[in-house]
Amino acid sequence: MDVERARAYVRENVDRWVAGVQRLVRQPSISAQHVGILETAALIRQEMERVGAHVCEERVGDGHPILYGEIDAGQSQTVLIYGHYDVQPPDPLAEWTHDPFGGEVADGAIYGRGAADEKGEFFSRLAAVEAYPASGCPLPVNVKFLVEGEEEIGSPSLEAYVRRHADRLRADAGIWEGGFKQRNGRIDLSFGNRGICYVELRCRGMKTDLHSGRGGLVTQPAWRLLHALATMRDQDGRVQIAGFYDEVKPPTAYEDTLLRENPLDEDAYREQLGITQFARGLVGLDLQREHLFQPTFTICGMLAGYTGRGMKTVVPREATVKLDCRLVPDMDPRRTFERIQAHLHRHGFDDVEATLVSATPPGQTSLQDRFVTVVAGAARTVYGVDPELRPRFGGSTPMYVFNKLLGVPTVAGVGVRWYGCNYHAPNENIRIEDFVQGTEHLVQIFWDLAQRP
Amino acid sequence: MDVERARAYVRENVDRWVAGVQRLVRQPSISAQHVGILETAALIRQEMERVGAHVCEERVGDGHPILYGEIDAGQSQTVLIYGHYDVQPPDPLAEWTHDPFGGEVADGAIYGRGAADEKGEFFSRLAAVEAYPASGCPLPVNVKFLVEGEEEIGSPSLEAYVRRHADRLRADAGIWEGGFKQRNGRIDLSFGNRGICYVELRCRGMKTDLHSGRGGLVTQPAWRLLHALATMRDQDGRVQIAGFYDEVKPPTAYEDTLLRENPLDEDAYREQLGITQFARGLVGLDLQREHLFQPTFTICGMLAGYTGRGMKTVVPREATVKLDCRLVPDMDPRRTFERIQAHLHRHGFDDVEATLVSATPPGQTSLQDRFVTVVAGAARTVYGVDPELRPRFGGSTPMYVFNKLLGVPTVAGVGVRWYGCNYHAPNENIRIEDFVQGTEHLVQIFWDLAQRP
Repeated sequence: MDVERARAYVRENVDRWVAGVQRLVRQPSISAQHVGILETAALIRQEMERVGAHVCEERVGDGHPILYGEIDAGQSQTVLIYGHYDVQPPDPLAEWTHDPFGGEVADGAIYGRGAADEKGEFFSRLAAVEAYPASGCPLPVNVKFLVEGEEEIGSPSLEAYVRRHADRLRADAGIWEGGFKQRNGRIDLSFGNRGICYVELRCRGMKTDLHSGRGGLVTQPAWRLLHALATMRDQDGRVQIAGFYDEVKPPTAYEDTLLRENPLDEDAYREQLGITQFARGLVGLDLQREHLFQPTFTICGMLAGYTGRGMKTVVPREATVKLDCRLVPDMDPRRTFERIQAHLHRHGFDDVEATLVSATPPGQTSLQDRFVTVVAGAARTVYGVDPELRPRFGGSTPMYVFNKLLGVPTVAGVGVRWYGCNYHAPNENIRIEDFVQGTEHLVQIFWDLAQRP
Repeated sequence: MDVERARAYVRENVDRWVAGVQRLVRQPSISAQHVGILETAALIRQEMERVGAHVCEERVGDGHPILYGEIDAGQSQTVLIYGHYDVQPPDPLAEWTHDPFGGEVADGAIYGRGAADEKGEFFSRLAAVEAYPASGCPLPVNVKFLVEGEEEIGSPSLEAYVRRHADRLRADAGIWEGGFKQRNGRIDLSFGNRGICYVELRCRGMKTDLHSGRGGLVTQPAWRLLHALATMRDQDGRVQIAGFYDEVKPPTAYEDTLLRENPLDEDAYREQLGITQFARGLVGLDLQREHLFQPTFTICGMLAGYTGRGMKTVVPREATVKLDCRLVPDMDPRRTFERIQAHLHRHGFDDVEATLVSATPPGQTSLQDRFVTVVAGAARTVYGVDPELRPRFGGSTPMYVFNKLLGVPTVAGVGVRWYGCNYHAPNENIRIEDFVQGTEHLVQIFWDLAQRP
């Protein structure tokens, strides 16, 4: 069968795939710092054209280029594939044992920022598309690519682009980013994700740093910010902002069943993180519910005054914190931000200024959709074991533009990552064997989808 | 009279003094970062020998060199002069409008890190000593210099050195650092200072940063540290650590009188700091009492996770804070540190590790000492106005080694700084006219002390 020839082609061309991932990793593309964006967009465009896509590049305002690519194979089914070519900043640099932009291969893995999230993964999509014609078989589905360069800064252009081109983007199934192979060899398949409301709080005081020998004279911005934060979340992690949890819904019985059937690999997590227990000692279903059905209120960064070696005796003139709230359905990021602002005002912290840095709603595909069956079946065929079905994953991507705005049933979990891939952390990597399997999975999905329209 | 010839010499040689201060400022000597220490010690030694001192250099363990210099003028009175050749780090660099190590002269002032604190000031001591023989007059007192290179990191070697050389250091009067001219043209004279207990708190969690999409899974170190801090000091600035205030004594009636007679220049402070009111709206005597007779609990620095541009979605694996407690008599820095540790333990924060970075006890000279009269009288003569007498100043220097360990009555306030000198801050500077007057003041003190033994 064609699908077997195409899958064999994937296995037989490993060296080409490794070289392709290396090419992409070696080109930095840090969206938060506007590094290498245009160069990377040009590179990705070349790769898309190489596999036969007709590519159209566009910007929303002065956003980073969005690449739309289309392969009309004359088939009845169309698959819409999401990707992003930007990456997280590589710091803390001192903790990398490989060059973050070197694309080094060691022990069967490719290292570098973006190897997993998600240059390596997007390159796997291209390989899956290429495998059919390269092995002499017709591509069994039409393919549309939508590739952005702002995912790591909250995809500010994506919604506007998708609304503008809703017709062009019509499809029968969506492939989102974020494959993830567990230690037990089973992959995660998720059909939704949490949203995000990323906020910076800043308290300004004096117009200059002050010698701390005069520390008693002034209201100290760092203490003000710290006390403001302490009113927002108690020691048990419960957020104290009025209305914060109003739209949170408990899991349905079916969602709880899925959580129970596919438990977190707690040992692997604990070992990877070097911790003895999870938050508040949670385990099992309670831990999964906390992870996927509750919002978070994380401090991603905190800065005031002197943070170098030794001591400096100053009262810092200002203090800042970066807060990350992951949102579950039906929370709304802008409403969450307004509640934070209202909380500050109500508690007398008008000297703490809040800025909304990024806002992405949560997104969800119905678990009853036939596409769930197709993706799970293809996973069984390729990996030889059942996938783990999850109602959603804990991170935030703008998947809502597919499953909510376009109405395209969409999966996250077809891909190349694994439990030790360290995405968003030092020594990010993918294993070459996972690349091959993840690519074969998509090859199989194309085939199965065409058989079961 | 000799004193008038020596003072005239000071006024007539301004260019030499400016060049001398520039020489010292242009040689960085950041003790916290071990930058330029040996080079600066050698430079200071040359300057001391140039004015006729016999210099002996010594270290305590692997501490920075301590320079002892002696000029035996065959007189009955001996003045012991303290100095330090190290400086604070220059950051935040972006806020300097002059090169921090350029020694630039602009608008009658010399700019640079250390110009005020205290290279320029120590150079003024040398100029005062030089002025007598250079104008053909005998030096009316014997002089001993004690110059260290670790003041800005808490003088870890000084106490051991002073205990070891208590005999050599005997003197009738001590000159400490820290002159300060108010906006009204009157100088501050202080006869004590607060101590310091500088502590670093660190909370460690995971062994690596974690993608914040999994933020609900783990106990977050930044939140743990923040909640620990929030238990230590309430929103009104009152420290909640058991026993923290036990040794604090209210001002005596005479001390209150001095505070009343010499109010803070509140308008100048407010303008300099760009604030509309002081801590908790304090004014007048209450503000002065808070400043000089109460301890502080300042956050000097705070760091966790990503603090760069834009957003990064991580749970930081650790968080740190630098705390600075200024101590009044009879608080003890080590006892204060133990109370902080006990507080963390009692409140369940055993995951927050406390490190004592620096410990200096408070120091105090009796306001009844005849040296107080000598210094105040000389100030009146040189400045033409009464000085402002203060029981103590709010900063911390190891003055206790003079007035407590050696029993030498000691003044802080003879010097070259002014209300806009920005010490420990960007654009540190001294005005050349203040350098001349501060030097004349010491010339006059030498004379008056010899007349009133």
